[in-house]
Amino acid sequence: MNSDAQYAASPAPVIASGVLPVLKQFTLPEALGFGRVMAPIMYRAQFRNGGWQAAQVLPYEAISIDPAAKVLHYAQEVFEGLKAYRHSDNNVSLFRPLENWKRFNRSADRMCMPAVPESIFMDGVSAVSSLMAKHIPAKPGQSLYLRPFMIGVDASLGLAASLDNDFYVIASPSEVYQQGSFKVMIERQDCRAALGGTGNVKVGGNYAAALAAGRRVQAAGFDQSLWLDPAEHRYIEELSGMNVFALINGALHTPSLSGSILPGITRDSVLQLARLSGVEVIERSIDINELLEAVVSGECSEVFACGTAAVITPISIIADGDIRYEFKAGNPFATQLHTLLTDIQEGRGEDVFNWNWPLTDVNVLDTSDSV
Amino acid sequence: MNSDAQYAASPAPVIASGVLPVLKQFTLPEALGFGRVMAPIMYRAQFRNGGWQAAQVLPYEAISIDPAAKVLHYAQEVFEGLKAYRHSDNNVSLFRPLENWKRFNRSADRMCMPAVPESIFMDGVSAVSSLMAKHIPAKPGQSLYLRPFMIGVDASLGLAASLDNDFYVIASPSEVYQQGSFKVMIERQDCRAALGGTGNVKVGGNYAAALAAGRRVQAAGFDQSLWLDPAEHRYIEELSGMNVFALINGALHTPSLSGSILPGITRDSVLQLARLSGVEVIERSIDINELLEAVVSGECSEVFACGTAAVITPISIIADGDIRYEFKAGNPFATQLHTLLTDIQEGRGEDVFNWNWPLTDVNVLDTSDSV
Ligand SMILES: Cc1ncc(COP(=O)(O)O)c(C=O)c1O
Ligand SMILES: Cc1ncc(COP(=O)(O)O)c(C=O)c1O
Repeated sequence: MNSDAQYAASPAPVIASGVLPVLKQFTLPEALGFGRVMAPIMYRAQFRNGGWQAAQVLPYEAISIDPAAKVLHYAQEVFEGLKAYRHSDNNVSLFRPLENWKRFNRSADRMCMPAVPESIFMDGVSAVSSLMAKHIPAKPGQSLYLRPFMIGVDASLGLAASLDNDFYVIASPSEVYQQGSFKVMIERQDCRAALGGTGNVKVGGNYAAALAAGRRVQAAGFDQSLWLDPAEHRYIEELSGMNVFALINGALHTPSLSGSILPGITRDSVLQLARLSGVEVIERSIDINELLEAVVSGECSEVFACGTAAVITPISIIADGDIRYEFKAGNPFATQLHTLLTDIQEGRGEDVFNWNWPLTDVNVLDTSDSV
Repeated sequence: MNSDAQYAASPAPVIASGVLPVLKQFTLPEALGFGRVMAPIMYRAQFRNGGWQAAQVLPYEAISIDPAAKVLHYAQEVFEGLKAYRHSDNNVSLFRPLENWKRFNRSADRMCMPAVPESIFMDGVSAVSSLMAKHIPAKPGQSLYLRPFMIGVDASLGLAASLDNDFYVIASPSEVYQQGSFKVMIERQDCRAALGGTGNVKVGGNYAAALAAGRRVQAAGFDQSLWLDPAEHRYIEELSGMNVFALINGALHTPSLSGSILPGITRDSVLQLARLSGVEVIERSIDINELLEAVVSGECSEVFACGTAAVITPISIIADGDIRYEFKAGNPFATQLHTLLTDIQEGRGEDVFNWNWPLTDVNVLDTSDSV
C-alpha cells in the first residue's frame, strides 16, 4: 500500500510536496546518540480563532516565530516524548501513545493552552512514524523518539495565555538515552518545581530550572541530579527526566506522586510489570537519609531510573556532596525488568497489557516503494 | 546629527538597509495599551562558537527557529523590561538600565546562558530607543517599553544548556500597565516558583506557572494573583509581574527578598524614595493573615504594587476566596510616591539618585530628519 491510502481513515494531514523527496534523500548516520539526528519531516497543526486547522506534514525546517510570541518570553510550551519501535516483522508500533496524549493535555491545561484532540495527536505521531518507517533503527535499544510539542504564538508583551497555538510532532531516530548506568548526585540546593507549581506536568520551565544543577553535576563527573522535594528538601523525587525506583528488602519502592514529580508512563509500566511478577510494590515518601542508610546496610540492593528515553537504567553511584554510595553487586532486578519491558516494546515478548499500538498496515517492506 | 554618528562611539551595530524605511512608515496608533504595539525594528546579537558576533539592528520580523531549539522545549529563555522616556526637552532617557543589565545576567547565569556584555546590552537598548526616539509617546505614563531577551537555540532534544544563544531587544510604545487600581486575589493553591527554583530571576517558566492562576483571577473579575511563599503558603511574595508594599502604622513594609521573589528595580527605587522622604521602611516576612487583620483594623491603610510596567499602582481590593478586603480611603501615600518617582522618570523632577540614563545627543527634533 502507499502512504495516501494509509491516511484515508484518519483526518488526513496534507502531505506537503517536499516531504517525499526529503524522505528519499534521508539516510541514517552510523552514530545516532539520543535526540541528535532529526527526522527530515515534521507534522504541524495550528489552533486559530478557537479551532484546529487542517494539519500538514512538512519537510523539517526552521519555523517562523514572532519575536514577541508568548513561548519566547513566558515559556508557554508543553511537550511529550514517546517511541515508535520497528519490530522484527518490520511493522511499526508505538508504546502506550494514548497515555502521552492524556498527559499532554494535562500539561496543556496547566499552561492554559487548548486540548489537542486525540485524532490530531495520534494522527501526528502516526504520520511521522509511518513516513519514517524504513528509517527507524531496529537494533535493541533503538527507536524513533517522537517529540510532540505545542507553543503559544500570540505576539504581545502582556502576561496572558496565548489564543493561537501551534502543535508540532518532530522525531529523532535514537539510541537509548544512556548506555550502562547513571551516576547521580543528590541536589541539595536547587529545586526543579514547587508544590503547586508545574512539576507534575511536562512543561519547559521545569527543565530550565534543572539546567544549573545539571551543570554542577557534569562538572563533578556525574550524569544526573537526584531531586529532593521542594518543601523540606528531604524526600526523593526523581531525576530531571526519569523516575526513580529502589529495591529494598526485595520490595520495589518508588516516590508516590507528590504533585511535584512527573507521573511517568514507564514508572507506571514498571509498577505493573513488577506486580505481575509477584513483587511487592510500595509508592510512598522516601526520605533520602533512610535510603542512604539502607544502601549502606545493604537492605537497598538496587536503585534504578526509568523513563521513555532511558527505558530502565541502573544507578551505580549516588553522591551526596563528597560522599559516594556505590552499588557493586550488579543489577539483577533492574536487568530482569528491563528484559520484560523491552521484550514488549521491541516486539519480542507477549504484549500482556496491550501496551503496543501497531500502526495499521505500516510495513517497511511494503512502503519502501512509496516513499 | 544623524544616526550613524550616534553610534560611532559604541560598538556600532550594523543598521540593516530595511530599518530606516520601516521607521519612516511607522505611525503611532491612537490607542496604545501595554505591550501591544510593537516598534518596527529590533536589535540582535548572536552568541556563536563561544563569542558574541557583530550586532545588527533589523526590521522587526518573525525570527527563524529550529523546531528542536532548547527555547521551545526546555524554556531556556530570559528577559528584562525597562523603559525609555521622552522628556519635554525631547531628549530620551532610560531608567536605571544598568540594574536591568545586571539582573539580566543573573537570570542568564541561572539558565546556564552566557553573560551579555554591558556594551551589547546598553548598545541594544540605546540603539532601539534612539532610532525610535520620535515615536516615543510622551504623555504622563507613556514610554517606550524595552524588552531585551535571550533564547537558547541549539537544536537537539537532550536536556542540556544551549551553546548558541540569541540576544534581542524589541520594544513597544506603551501606556502604563494598568489605569486606576488593581483588584488582587490571594492565590492559595498554586505557586509561581520554588525555593531553590527560579523565582528570583526573570525567566519564562515563572510566568508560565502563573498563567492558570491568572485565568482563575480573571474569571472571578479580578486583575492579579497575590502569591504566597512556596514552602508554607503563608507569607506574601509578590504579584505575577510586580512587587508589593503595605503602609502599616505609617511605616512602609515589603516582603524581604526571600529567594523566590524578583528583586524589582522599582521596589528598590521605592525603598530609596521612601527613606529619603523620612518614611521608615521595613523589609520582612509578612504573614498574609497578619496583613488582612491589619487591613480590617485600619492599621494597614494602603497596599500598592510596583514594577516597571505598572510603575506604582494602588491595590483597591484583596480577595481571599469569597471574602473581600477593601481600601476605601484613597491612596495618598502611593500617590505621593508615584509623583516622586514619575517626576524623575518623566524628567520633571530633580534626579537626586542619578537614576536617569540620558541617551547622548538623542533629541527628537534633531533626529527627525535622519530617520
Ligand atoms: C521529569 C521527568 N520525570 C519522569 C519522566 C519519565 O516519564 P515517562 O516514563 O513517561 O517518559 C520524564 C520523561 O518523560 C520526565 O521528564
Ligand atoms: C515577578 C516580578 N516581580 C516584580 C517585578 C518588578 O520588577 P521591576 O521593578 O524591576 O520591573 C517584575 C517585573 O519586572 C516581575 O516580573
